[in-house]
Amino acid sequence: MTTIASVRSDYYLVPLDVVLSDSTHGSIPHFELVTVRVTDSDGAEGIGYTYAVNSGGAAFKTLIDHYLTPVVLGADVDASERVWQDMWWAVHYSGRGGHATSAISAVDIAIWDLRAKRAGQPLWRYFGGFDPKVPVYAGGIDLDFSVEELLEQADRFQELGFRAIKMKVGRASLREDVERVRRMREHLGDDFPLMVDANMKWSVDQAVRAAQALAEFNLLWIEEPTIPDDVAGHVRVVREGRTPVATGENMHTLYEFSNLIVAGGLTYPEPDVTNCGGMTVFRKIAAVAEAHNLPVTSHGVHDLTVHLLAAAPNRTFMEAHGFSLDRYIAHPMAVVDGFTMAPERPGHGIELDWSALEQHRS
Amino acid sequence: MTTIASVRSDYYLVPLDVVLSDSTHGSIPHFELVTVRVTDSDGAEGIGYTYAVNSGGAAFKTLIDHYLTPVVLGADVDASERVWQDMWWAVHYSGRGGHATSAISAVDIAIWDLRAKRAGQPLWRYFGGFDPKVPVYAGGIDLDFSVEELLEQADRFQELGFRAIKMKVGRASLREDVERVRRMREHLGDDFPLMVDANMKWSVDQAVRAAQALAEFNLLWIEEPTIPDDVAGHVRVVREGRTPVATGENMHTLYEFSNLIVAGGLTYPEPDVTNCGGMTVFRKIAAVAEAHNLPVTSHGVHDLTVHLLAAAPNRTFMEAHGFSLDRYIAHPMAVVDGFTMAPERPGHGIELDWSALEQHRS
Repeated sequence: MTTIASVRSDYYLVPLDVVLSDSTHGSIPHFELVTVRVTDSDGAEGIGYTYAVNSGGAAFKTLIDHYLTPVVLGADVDASERVWQDMWWAVHYSGRGGHATSAISAVDIAIWDLRAKRAGQPLWRYFGGFDPKVPVYAGGIDLDFSVEELLEQADRFQELGFRAIKMKVGRASLREDVERVRRMREHLGDDFPLMVDANMKWSVDQAVRAAQALAEFNLLWIEEPTIPDDVAGHVRVVREGRTPVATGENMHTLYEFSNLIVAGGLTYPEPDVTNCGGMTVFRKIAAVAEAHNLPVTSHGVHDLTVHLLAAAPNRTFMEAHGFSLDRYIAHPMAVVDGFTMAPERPGHGIELDWSALEQHRS
Repeated sequence: MTTIASVRSDYYLVPLDVVLSDSTHGSIPHFELVTVRVTDSDGAEGIGYTYAVNSGGAAFKTLIDHYLTPVVLGADVDASERVWQDMWWAVHYSGRGGHATSAISAVDIAIWDLRAKRAGQPLWRYFGGFDPKVPVYAGGIDLDFSVEELLEQADRFQELGFRAIKMKVGRASLREDVERVRRMREHLGDDFPLMVDANMKWSVDQAVRAAQALAEFNLLWIEEPTIPDDVAGHVRVVREGRTPVATGENMHTLYEFSNLIVAGGLTYPEPDVTNCGGMTVFRKIAAVAEAHNLPVTSHGVHDLTVHLLAAAPNRTFMEAHGFSLDRYIAHPMAVVDGFTMAPERPGHGIELDWSALEQHRS
């Protein structure tokens, strides 16, 4: 039996090229990155990471170092499900489903990377590869852009190879949102896949009114119309708003996804592999979505997510969004005519530039 | 305006007199305690704390020191709702509802203590006192006790003044649970308030069968029949099990309580003020319960909780359970003929023996 021999975590505050902003999180000058390196008793290494905006990295590292590492050390490297359960219950009473899930995610991702590397396969094949060619979309962090900047950004996204775009909504007045979406729809053409993201800005009534006002623009989805806790509210937005709903970046358990899906409040489940519980839980969420005849999309960390969506028969557009991590990754994702290809390198195939990251250690 | 001038946190691993065990958490040799001391610009001090079993304390302290303290410093000491919202959103993306909620709880409790002290009132009066005489129950951590030990413990609890008792269930076979409850019911008499606690041990089908098998014993409630995430499962246990259901110690948001209450899956909401979001959220949960014609009970930290239940018109039995913290508290709770009296000391009235705690600093 090959066992896990070491777990190392590191915490970085990585500056963004441009300070970002949305309707909920204010200005975001950097992102919090916690990496995990797991080695096995044969000396092989797996890499995982999780991230957040504005807060959280120090807590992720504390949870990994104090409570998860003791559970993981000495475990069978192939017993990833057992290790996941042991991590979950080690921190369950003190706080299931919050920061704990991101900490678990980082370790779980490192273990899956290690397992696939040992098998000599890229993760998407190791997961039973469905199709390495994954459709992607570009998400603009553009709530404060003028209409002109919005359209210019759309042109840039298309030059970069994207054939689907998401824009922020949640301006002070709904009329502004409607006008901005109208201009984007006119600019992009009737059939171009266009989504909007409200970042939980609205009450349910506001979200229903917004969805109805935007219905004529044939949006692929409205993302995070309201807070993730409001199951009944999401159901209203789906039914009365007459527009599909995506959410998930603020949902941290399989059960949160399942409860919302079963209730009929979620059209496009959008798990983030770094905060939903890792590869182990993302795959279960994708399976629950499939069982409910739903697609699965994603949030963030496209370099990891591409493997999960390349293995999921119900995958739809993947979000291309990695903050500024691209600068520290040896083989950044390439987008051609709306698609990216899952890599053939073993594991997830991400090589981080540790020495360049070092300056951002926190 | 009086503002918050300092926030200090401390982390202790406090040994238990006796190693405890239940059906889910294994053996518990100590508990994790994180205290918070908040002072205002007039020099007044408020004290709060949160706790956990087996893990979490280091993460609570990290969250308080890194992410909550910067939000709280300089805030209007009377704007506790504003401060709560600012804390919630400061850690929302990185992990709403898990460890973050315990960290927020400790700070919120300290702020409420400070506010009531400034007003010269005990918290229960500051909250609009309903009745300082609060019924209490003793919770045995007794899953591994023999029947004889169980009955002896029940006698001891009655000698200490308790007139309501909770026992653990979730033994290897349901027949054992039924036999143990039968013996306790015979020992205590038909009308003695008796509850059982399964600590999430069961599947929903097992919980329904157990509830039905225990129905003849007129239990006040079955606590944590299954995992807190399973809303539909709780509804089944309430309806098919024909026994009231209590849960809450593993629920960390107002919305978790509300969603389960609205669905009809919860008869006795059981928030823990140290992990549901503090005094601010406990009172909202009590209000949601009242609005749904339900009582409110509690988990843990009776020295804090007594103020909340003494102010709640729908309060029922309070759990008497403070781990071994009594040893470090100047005025431990007294129980007389099934009741305790909320204290008249300003704030929550808890004075901790800091020098005795010092030996357990972690």
